[in-house]
Amino acid sequence: MSDQSRNLDAYAKAGVDIAAGNEAVARYKGVLGAWRHPDQMDAIGGFGGVMRMPGGGDRALVASADGVGTKILIAAELERYDGVGRDLVNHCVNDILVVNATPLFFLDYLAVGKLDPEVAAAVVAGCAAACRAHMCALLGGETAEMPGLYAPGHFDLAGTIVGTVEIAALPKPETVEAGDAIVALPAVGLHTNGYSLARKFIAREEWGAPFDGTTYGDALLAEHPSYYNAVRAIQAVAHVKTMSHITGGGLLENVPRTLPSTVKAIFEQTRWSVPPIMQELVKRAELSHEERYRTLNMGIGYTLVVPLADAAKAVAAAPGAFVAGWIEARRGDEPSVVVHEARV
Amino acid sequence: MSDQSRNLDAYAKAGVDIAAGNEAVARYKGVLGAWRHPDQMDAIGGFGGVMRMPGGGDRALVASADGVGTKILIAAELERYDGVGRDLVNHCVNDILVVNATPLFFLDYLAVGKLDPEVAAAVVAGCAAACRAHMCALLGGETAEMPGLYAPGHFDLAGTIVGTVEIAALPKPETVEAGDAIVALPAVGLHTNGYSLARKFIAREEWGAPFDGTTYGDALLAEHPSYYNAVRAIQAVAHVKTMSHITGGGLLENVPRTLPSTVKAIFEQTRWSVPPIMQELVKRAELSHEERYRTLNMGIGYTLVVPLADAAKAVAAAPGAFVAGWIEARRGDEPSVVVHEARV
Repeated sequence: MSDQSRNLDAYAKAGVDIAAGNEAVARYKGVLGAWRHPDQMDAIGGFGGVMRMPGGGDRALVASADGVGTKILIAAELERYDGVGRDLVNHCVNDILVVNATPLFFLDYLAVGKLDPEVAAAVVAGCAAACRAHMCALLGGETAEMPGLYAPGHFDLAGTIVGTVEIAALPKPETVEAGDAIVALPAVGLHTNGYSLARKFIAREEWGAPFDGTTYGDALLAEHPSYYNAVRAIQAVAHVKTMSHITGGGLLENVPRTLPSTVKAIFEQTRWSVPPIMQELVKRAELSHEERYRTLNMGIGYTLVVPLADAAKAVAAAPGAFVAGWIEARRGDEPSVVVHEARV
Repeated sequence: MSDQSRNLDAYAKAGVDIAAGNEAVARYKGVLGAWRHPDQMDAIGGFGGVMRMPGGGDRALVASADGVGTKILIAAELERYDGVGRDLVNHCVNDILVVNATPLFFLDYLAVGKLDPEVAAAVVAGCAAACRAHMCALLGGETAEMPGLYAPGHFDLAGTIVGTVEIAALPKPETVEAGDAIVALPAVGLHTNGYSLARKFIAREEWGAPFDGTTYGDALLAEHPSYYNAVRAIQAVAHVKTMSHITGGGLLENVPRTLPSTVKAIFEQTRWSVPPIMQELVKRAELSHEERYRTLNMGIGYTLVVPLADAAKAVAAAPGAFVAGWIEARRGDEPSVVVHEARV
């Protein structure tokens, strides 16, 4: 069985169909390839779309839409509503940060089966707090009550962020070369990915039970952090060539998105610790090496490629930052990411 | 029973709680009032948020998020997937058109219980087609598979549009005065509003049955049109003071959003015909006068206030446009909108 099909098995267990996802993406490419706006620019890595700002000269707008995924079902069940707003905004901030964009404004979409104003206000308050922390306007939003689509107590939350970047400051992945260091910013938990798997292997009944000094529920709901301040601090002292936000697809799929095909990323997992909730999930779901690094972030939330000479300065600039690996030349059909792993 | 509480009754019958909606909006104001980005501008009517473009001098960005509502459940049931994408984009285009914005880019959010790549591609193709028709980039999107939140076959679709406007071209509602004419653009059906009510009173079993030269299903799914070209054509020949997109809340709630409190809008329903599907719904749900004009668009999709002297030119500039009423002075606590109605 190939690594790829093993991976599909892991997702299929959780009811998520990656093959269907890949086919949808392929079909989208056909749909979107039919016409492209002349001001659209290359969206490095695809974490956000990039568009020349009309009349804005040397600036571009960067936009990204995202949701919180099935983390929302855990939040709804445990009646913890404000965290998902911060999860969502921070996720979006990190996505456009990959192309070096500064948040400008955000809009939320909250869909509910039965509108509870207190719950809705808590969700939006979470969005507002995370927006304010980034000096990002919460410029609008939509709250939809849709009986028949959502069960009572259920809701969905998605959002769109728009930021700005100087065109000259867009990352230059083509400058990445063998010998560069990969600086990583730590993940605090699953962030907003792997929740269908988590809900399958860590049952509702356990969420209140003690785990690692907290509860399973708290560990699962640990908030997706914003890497904005850390990245800006590192950029102030180090030359950052390219970055990745480690979301669905893990290190294996996200890191290559912003690397040229001539290099590969080598990670040495002995250099960091995997959050306990992820260790637990790996054990329970019996995830293979491939599965764990493609399904979960495994403790790395964000990566930055810097010249080796800048690595120490970069690490010193942001709390928790560490050198997670390095860049090597890639030949032929070698994998783009290799993770050397200690037993978790 | 007051008109307001009658109206709540009508929605409550359909499982939509307007009182909860109003309370949520009041709470949002508290949340959002805590901090406002210094570049945010007054969002005339609240159809879209407006923000000064950084480095953009005399331009502003205008953004709006929206969903298709429970029209999606009819589309899913009848397996008609591309129309909802056009519905959504056109709805968003019309919303920001109220502040005179030209679409720049759009991002979609598609959430499904079980991902069917063909369905997903059809939905996104609908978005792409409507975007292209407006020279609007489909800059990104998110497709989320969320088993446990959505039933198999169910999906939700939302989107965010961003447009641009010259700050000098923002509408000036304060210039509206008694004697101005209200030019209307016709609605073709429910557009994206009133579907919880429609699904309650026009049952699934009837959707295939003949109705008004088509079927109930087709009449219900009639696509939300874009008023972009019509509005631009009218603006080329007439001085447009203010506009409204007639969505949830109908004429009664949407028209006053872009009028000063010193005037009221008088509509004379004998001047236009109410689409048959709406007549049917009014009859079946026994909607009061207040209910019908607050729940449904009743045949008017978009309104433009112009000086009386410009009304004939405006009407001649856009196919289907007609004078629907006029502006009068408003005193004290008079209603902001009055509809003189023939029997429907």
